[in-house]
Amino acid sequence: MPSTETRALFRPEHLCEFMASVLRHYGMPEDDAELAARIFNDADLAGIETHGIAQFPVHWLYVKGLQLGVVDPRPKVTVLRETPAIATWDAGKGLGPVIAHRAMTAAIEKARNLGVGMISVRNGRHAGALGYFARMAAEQGMLGMVMCHTGGTTFPPGGTRPAAGTNPIAFAAPVPDSHPFSLDMSTTAIAGSNLAMAKRRGTQLPPGCAVDAQGQPTTSPYVRDEGGSLLYLGATAEGGGHKGFGLALMVDVMSGLLSGTGSGLWQRYSPEWQMGHLFGAWSIEAFVDPQEFATEMKKLINHIHETPPAPGVDRVRVPGDRSHETRARRLREGIPLDASVVTLCRELGDSLGIDFPKPLKPAAVPR
Amino acid sequence: MPSTETRALFRPEHLCEFMASVLRHYGMPEDDAELAARIFNDADLAGIETHGIAQFPVHWLYVKGLQLGVVDPRPKVTVLRETPAIATWDAGKGLGPVIAHRAMTAAIEKARNLGVGMISVRNGRHAGALGYFARMAAEQGMLGMVMCHTGGTTFPPGGTRPAAGTNPIAFAAPVPDSHPFSLDMSTTAIAGSNLAMAKRRGTQLPPGCAVDAQGQPTTSPYVRDEGGSLLYLGATAEGGGHKGFGLALMVDVMSGLLSGTGSGLWQRYSPEWQMGHLFGAWSIEAFVDPQEFATEMKKLINHIHETPPAPGVDRVRVPGDRSHETRARRLREGIPLDASVVTLCRELGDSLGIDFPKPLKPAAVPR
Repeated sequence: MPSTETRALFRPEHLCEFMASVLRHYGMPEDDAELAARIFNDADLAGIETHGIAQFPVHWLYVKGLQLGVVDPRPKVTVLRETPAIATWDAGKGLGPVIAHRAMTAAIEKARNLGVGMISVRNGRHAGALGYFARMAAEQGMLGMVMCHTGGTTFPPGGTRPAAGTNPIAFAAPVPDSHPFSLDMSTTAIAGSNLAMAKRRGTQLPPGCAVDAQGQPTTSPYVRDEGGSLLYLGATAEGGGHKGFGLALMVDVMSGLLSGTGSGLWQRYSPEWQMGHLFGAWSIEAFVDPQEFATEMKKLINHIHETPPAPGVDRVRVPGDRSHETRARRLREGIPLDASVVTLCRELGDSLGIDFPKPLKPAAVPR
Repeated sequence: MPSTETRALFRPEHLCEFMASVLRHYGMPEDDAELAARIFNDADLAGIETHGIAQFPVHWLYVKGLQLGVVDPRPKVTVLRETPAIATWDAGKGLGPVIAHRAMTAAIEKARNLGVGMISVRNGRHAGALGYFARMAAEQGMLGMVMCHTGGTTFPPGGTRPAAGTNPIAFAAPVPDSHPFSLDMSTTAIAGSNLAMAKRRGTQLPPGCAVDAQGQPTTSPYVRDEGGSLLYLGATAEGGGHKGFGLALMVDVMSGLLSGTGSGLWQRYSPEWQMGHLFGAWSIEAFVDPQEFATEMKKLINHIHETPPAPGVDRVRVPGDRSHETRARRLREGIPLDASVVTLCRELGDSLGIDFPKPLKPAAVPR
C-alpha cells in the first residue's frame, strides 16, 4: 500500500460537497444527496477506501446506476409486511446508503418501543460500508446489526464453484466516553473489494486468502477473472473455513431469503444487481440496567486495551479502534486519494460541469 | 481419532435413560430430566462428542453441579424485564439445557406474535450444544439464533492475555423435505472442548489453531495449561483473526452484557461459572411469503450440494449435513463411546445404584 506521502490529500468536506453535487445533478433531493455523500465520505475517513469515493464514479449501483435509471433518485419505498417489531420493505431502487439509513432509523424506532426492531429490505442497491448503519444504533444507546448478501462469487470449502458471496456482517455497541465497538467484516478472509484495490495498485493478495479454478492457492488479484475464488474466513478445513462459509450462508438467508430478494447466488455485479438487507436494533435498556451495561462495557474494553502485546505488535485493538484513529487523523490531515481515483472523479465532474476539489498539497511523485 | 471399531457401541435410548435416571436421582422433575437427557444425547447422535455424555459425569455444571448445589434441579426462573417482543430472565441456576429449551420456546412464541422474539438469560449454566435450540425454531418454520459467552480463555490477535472466550453462535433455518441448515460454531478456529477430547485421546491439535504463552504456534492440547491459547477464527492478521475476535466480542456483548451477566472474561471453569445466553427467533411468514422462502431455500441448498468437489473431496456439504449423516448412522448402529467415558459413567452409576447400560457389541481392543 503506498504511504499517504505519495497521494494527494483532500479536505473531507470538499469531497462530500463534490459527491452531493453529483447526486443532486441526477435528481436526488438535497437532504438525501448530502446524507449519501456523508456516508460514502465516512468510509474514506475510516480508511475503508474500498467503500468510499473510489467506488463512487465506477460502481454500477451509484452514479452509473442513476445514469442508467437502475437507481431511482426519488424512490418510493413500499412497506410489504409489518408488525410493531418488524417490517419488510421494497426499497424501490433507492440509492443504497439512503435506504439503509431510513431502514436503520425505523429499526431503532421499533426497538425503542418493543426492545428489538428488525427491518428487512428487498430490491435494494449497494449501501456502502455497513458499519455506518450499525453505529447509528450505538449512537442511540442500542446494539445494531446489519447483514447484506453479495453476488455468488466464493467457492465453499472443498468446492470449485461459487456457493455464496462475501456476505458482510456489521455490529456495533456503545462504549461510554469513547467511540463505539464497531465490527464490519466480510465473511471471507479478505473482502471482495480488496481485489479492485489490489488491481488498481498493482499489488498481490495476502497468501492463504484465495484459490484458482482448480482449488490451488493463488495471490493474484485477478483470481476471479481467472475462474478462481476468495476463501471463506478460516480458509482451510482445519482452520475453520466451514465456519466462515456457514456465516456467509446465514447472512444470505437472513438478508436475501428473508427479504424475498432470494439468494445472492443468482445475482451478478451488473446494472441489474439487487441486494437484500437486514437491519436490527436492540434497546439495551429494555434488557438490562443501562448503567450496569455501560460500566461493564467500559471494563471489558479497558481490559482489552491493557492486554500485553506480542513482540512486534504496538497495541491490542478492539474492532472500531483503527478506523477511529484513522478518522481522527484524516479529519485533521485530509483524505488521501489514489491518482486513478482523482482522474475518474475529475472526469465525472467535468462531464457534469461540477468542479472536483483541489488537493490540500500537491501530489508527490509516486516512488 | 480412533475409528468406531475400537469403541463400544451403545443404544441411544439406553444412554438417554441412564442420564435421565441420574438427573431424577438429584431431584429433577421427570419431564425436565428426560428433556435434558435427550438434548445431551442429541449431541452424541450428531457426533458432537464434546457436548454429550462425555461431559455428563465430569462437567462442573451438570451432575457435579447438582451434587454441589450450584445447579438447582427445580429452578425458579424470574422474568426481570419484558415486552411483547423480548424478555430478560434470571435462570435461577437451572440446568442449562432445560432453561435453554424454555427460553427458545418463549422466543418462538414471541416471534409468532410479532415476527421476532429475543430472550436474554442471566445466571445460566452450561446448555450443551447450542445448535439444538436454534433448530427448535427451524422445526417451527422459523429462523433461530443462539449466542453464549464462555470464560475468558483466548488471546486476541497480537495479544498475550485472554480478551474473550470461544463464544459460540448457532443458527438454523428450515429446508423443505430435509433436515435444517444448522450452523453451530465457536468463534475460535477450533472449539475449546476439542482440547479435552485431544487430551483424553492423546492426540495433538491441528496446526495453526493455537499459540503458546509467548504467542508462538503450538499443537499441544495442554496449551491452556501451559499459559497459551487457542486462536480466533481466521487465526493470523492476514487470515482475518481480527474478524473471529470481533465475532467473539459481539457474542460476549449480546449474551453476557445484554443479560446482565457481565463479560465472560471474569468467569472461570469452576462450580461458580455463570453464563449469559441470547435466544432469538424470526418468523419467516411475518417477513415474506413462506412458500417463496421454501422454494428459494431448496434451490440454494440443491445448488450447493451439486457443487463440483475439488480433488480429494467427496462432496460439498451445507452446515448440518454431516451431523445429519452421523445421526442417521448412530440411530442405526449405536453411539460409540471412548473407554474412559464408559468408566466414568459406570462409576457414577455405581455410586448411585443406577446401572450403566451394556454395549451393543463387546468393545474391540484399541490399536
